[in-house]
Amino acid sequence: MPGPVRTVERLAWRAGRFTSGERVIAEETAVAFTYNGTTYAVMMATPQDLEDFAVGFTLTEGIVASPDEIESLEVLELDAGIELQMRLNETRAGALAARRRHLAGPTGCGLCGIESLTEAMRPLTPLAGDVSATPRDIMRAIGALSDLQVINQQTRAVHGAAFYRPGDDSLIMREDVGRHNALDKLCGALLRDNVSRQSGFAVVTSRLSIEMIQKAAMIGIPILVAVSAPTALAVRAAESAGMTLVAVARSDGFEVFTHPERIKEERSLHVVAG
Amino acid sequence: MPGPVRTVERLAWRAGRFTSGERVIAEETAVAFTYNGTTYAVMMATPQDLEDFAVGFTLTEGIVASPDEIESLEVLELDAGIELQMRLNETRAGALAARRRHLAGPTGCGLCGIESLTEAMRPLTPLAGDVSATPRDIMRAIGALSDLQVINQQTRAVHGAAFYRPGDDSLIMREDVGRHNALDKLCGALLRDNVSRQSGFAVVTSRLSIEMIQKAAMIGIPILVAVSAPTALAVRAAESAGMTLVAVARSDGFEVFTHPERIKEERSLHVVAG
Repeated sequence: MPGPVRTVERLAWRAGRFTSGERVIAEETAVAFTYNGTTYAVMMATPQDLEDFAVGFTLTEGIVASPDEIESLEVLELDAGIELQMRLNETRAGALAARRRHLAGPTGCGLCGIESLTEAMRPLTPLAGDVSATPRDIMRAIGALSDLQVINQQTRAVHGAAFYRPGDDSLIMREDVGRHNALDKLCGALLRDNVSRQSGFAVVTSRLSIEMIQKAAMIGIPILVAVSAPTALAVRAAESAGMTLVAVARSDGFEVFTHPERIKEERSLHVVAG
Repeated sequence: MPGPVRTVERLAWRAGRFTSGERVIAEETAVAFTYNGTTYAVMMATPQDLEDFAVGFTLTEGIVASPDEIESLEVLELDAGIELQMRLNETRAGALAARRRHLAGPTGCGLCGIESLTEAMRPLTPLAGDVSATPRDIMRAIGALSDLQVINQQTRAVHGAAFYRPGDDSLIMREDVGRHNALDKLCGALLRDNVSRQSGFAVVTSRLSIEMIQKAAMIGIPILVAVSAPTALAVRAAESAGMTLVAVARSDGFEVFTHPERIKEERSLHVVAG
């Protein structure tokens, strides 16, 4: 399996002259998702935490509703990339085949398997739970983030997605060259370790576009914090899904775009043993 | 048509207290690409320069080889988003239908219509041309970039792709919430205005992943400059396509990762009337 980074030779031009040297850059590998023998999607990703990626994507894209419905998962290294070969249970495999027959052809770009405008704007199940977080929790999570971004420290070009649990002050972190992939890997890690999504909140280093809201909502994350800004569509989607959207979260503060009732001085997180 | 930005209310937490106020954020709209009545892809994009987006994507994804093969283009505003309704000439429409029948189902995420790992790693036609640029050209282009990023100035969350022509010192700029989309819009603008890709070089504000190399190579851009870093796969793709990859281009300098022979003190650009 290729590593997540690679050192390459390059020519630097600075202060009016060229010098040769090296730079560490992020590796990127084509990753194919196959279900019961058929390719569903091919994505470019960081070749790391691939089991998490497989489980996370399959759940956040609604291909299955529970990790148990993935009967087997194999990570295969092929010449052209990596195949995440999954076998779904009979019910899900049948539903996916029917959906595929219905669809006319390829679609894409962050909206996997989406065939129509209406489907792209899929309504989200409202998020329940009286979970909340304090401003101090959010600042601590933001403060802890960069230390755990191991690949990004070397490359400065990789996104991170993390889940912060104030109860034990721990941070579960996943990284990827793609921001959707980083979130999918995090979701997979939470699902595989059976971490309650009511025990903390998610933090991403990237911008928040609507797909990020859709993915987080699919696995029941009620509070999503981002270092960068949300799009207007992401704000509308979070509003209607009942998700608390915190963004522009930096060392000097943050901004709450939707459902601010979950950000309060006294915390009420459901700390459930993972 | 929605505008590219929107002002929303939000609650800011800074210096230990909450204050309410407004922030300008980027709009994001579902955009469907349809060819001869069938949806090919749905993407989330900034609702601006949509004709450029339509033509650019259709060429950079190899659906047609020349803009003339798009017989008609209509931008339709629907309830759930925007449809870019295109009609291709008979040959291309037939080829696309055959390809769709061959494909088994949906694929996606930056790799539109890609069904297999091998297809994701498509070999690129080597870029020809003795075109070159000087370090001064690159620094001027980088310096001129931010002034033209009108949407990003307001939102700080939008990517830009530009084409710099040292001959007339002009910069053609397109913006989008998605970096692939920004590049597709720029490619469309160049193609629609018949701007020679040998008359300058492209500059993007984002990272360089392999899809960015593939798209630029598809319309014959020999020099690609990025503000951020490339992935290792992007470097390998540029190397084999004969593309000069300049990255980490900031006010203090830049780095050349592939084919440095095109960066030299004396310029040789083919300035062709647009």
